[in-house]
Amino acid sequence: MKLIRFGAPGQEKPGILTEDNIRLDVSGFVSDYDEAFFENDGLSSLAQYVAQNETALPVINNQERLGPPIKRPSKIVCVGLNYAKHAAESGMALPKEPVLFFKATSAICGPNDPVIIPRNSEKTDWEVELAVVIGKKASYVSKENALDYVAGYTLHNDYSERAFQLEKEGQWVKGKSCDTFAPIGPFLATKEEVPNPHNLNLWLKVNGELLQDSNTEDLIFDIPHLVSYISEYMTLLPGDIISTGTPFGVGLGFDPPRYLKPGDVVELGIDKLGVSSQIAQAYS
Amino acid sequence: MKLIRFGAPGQEKPGILTEDNIRLDVSGFVSDYDEAFFENDGLSSLAQYVAQNETALPVINNQERLGPPIKRPSKIVCVGLNYAKHAAESGMALPKEPVLFFKATSAICGPNDPVIIPRNSEKTDWEVELAVVIGKKASYVSKENALDYVAGYTLHNDYSERAFQLEKEGQWVKGKSCDTFAPIGPFLATKEEVPNPHNLNLWLKVNGELLQDSNTEDLIFDIPHLVSYISEYMTLLPGDIISTGTPFGVGLGFDPPRYLKPGDVVELGIDKLGVSSQIAQAYS
Repeated sequence: MKLIRFGAPGQEKPGILTEDNIRLDVSGFVSDYDEAFFENDGLSSLAQYVAQNETALPVINNQERLGPPIKRPSKIVCVGLNYAKHAAESGMALPKEPVLFFKATSAICGPNDPVIIPRNSEKTDWEVELAVVIGKKASYVSKENALDYVAGYTLHNDYSERAFQLEKEGQWVKGKSCDTFAPIGPFLATKEEVPNPHNLNLWLKVNGELLQDSNTEDLIFDIPHLVSYISEYMTLLPGDIISTGTPFGVGLGFDPPRYLKPGDVVELGIDKLGVSSQIAQAYS
Repeated sequence: MKLIRFGAPGQEKPGILTEDNIRLDVSGFVSDYDEAFFENDGLSSLAQYVAQNETALPVINNQERLGPPIKRPSKIVCVGLNYAKHAAESGMALPKEPVLFFKATSAICGPNDPVIIPRNSEKTDWEVELAVVIGKKASYVSKENALDYVAGYTLHNDYSERAFQLEKEGQWVKGKSCDTFAPIGPFLATKEEVPNPHNLNLWLKVNGELLQDSNTEDLIFDIPHLVSYISEYMTLLPGDIISTGTPFGVGLGFDPPRYLKPGDVVELGIDKLGVSSQIAQAYS
């Protein structure tokens, strides 16, 4: 299944996207795609409900705004430097184990909402990433069993303000957490939609120019490794997001670096996970 | 007012603690101390309700477990190295601006729950901290207005696994986010209970020995500064926690360092914010 949420920001309702690209409203059956939904095996109940009721479900207008495909989760765990060429362009050594950081969940927005360049920002940058959505509580999970804890996958642009991230005191979190810095979606593809998440093309364009173009087979630490590793340091809750890192081609890596200015159009996509687009706007 | 939550983990109900230290159940009026409660000025409505109904409210048995005094918020923003002597004992320079990091909200537990020493941990350490609870959405807030965005204050022990935090690749988050690493409470003291949060003694003992003993007047960056500063990098939501940093006397600072072993008893307190106690247990 492909899960979507639609409606005004903060008031999104749950829906699904059919194989024919029709958006159907399932808010009569599911209140939201939140922690309780995943925890109580809502995916199975929903699949059964849809199979029995598909023809009767209300069709959603394609003009309706898409929100993030899941409700705000407890956390977004991001993985840094997880593609070899990107580590090199960032001037950092290849990590011996996953590099983790958090992004504030208040940064989450819809896949096609504008990205707001923060006040005093001159270095707002892009990062196309495959995001994993956790399906059940995971603590000290083995690599062998790790995929049992995954609900599905979604597209994420891990926007980053490089001066806030790298030129300020302390940790990366300052440059990762501004509002609108985590557009997610267009949909959550459940696990069976993506039999092999380690062979997906992912790409990103700015104003039509292809700047990131890679494949998830180049991940240094694969998804089972990441789920297992992270679950040694914290409990992953249903709905939590792991963003698996970005490939070569971010603005920071150019000489001279290239950053977003108001009006720039960012488009990105991953095989089987759809496409999103954000227009950069100045904070006002 | 002093807000408490009581009951089994994950099923806590809201209550208040009276001036006579009586615990009263307010779950007939408030569903929980969550984002919506703070956002909708729940504190004012609750104060009015309590004033009119105090004698009729059910008394809670003092044996009932206390949970964290607020429901799991969207984020815990922690401030590193915010007391000069602690920065020195950590071998780090005094910061020129606040050092921020995140702690997973899945680490939150009740004030007197056991602290679980994670698997493969040899360096679990303590940090008594004054935590600020946000009362309304804060983005680009000035220092002058910052306290308008604060609901109150609570006691927090920012447990830290020093090997996970400092000897692993990447960011501090790995050493800060293990389950039970954020005991919060016993209560949330609303702002009017603490007219001056910058003159409070704070202390921590391990097995009866006083190891941290300082005062919030020694904060390098004070609370208005922190709220204002953080709100430049992310939006603080109602219920969010800012943990303001720990003073001198953590285990890492001793020569040789001292870390927790199973059975150790940690007690801590801050003037006007009560006392909490955690017994260290091995993960099992």
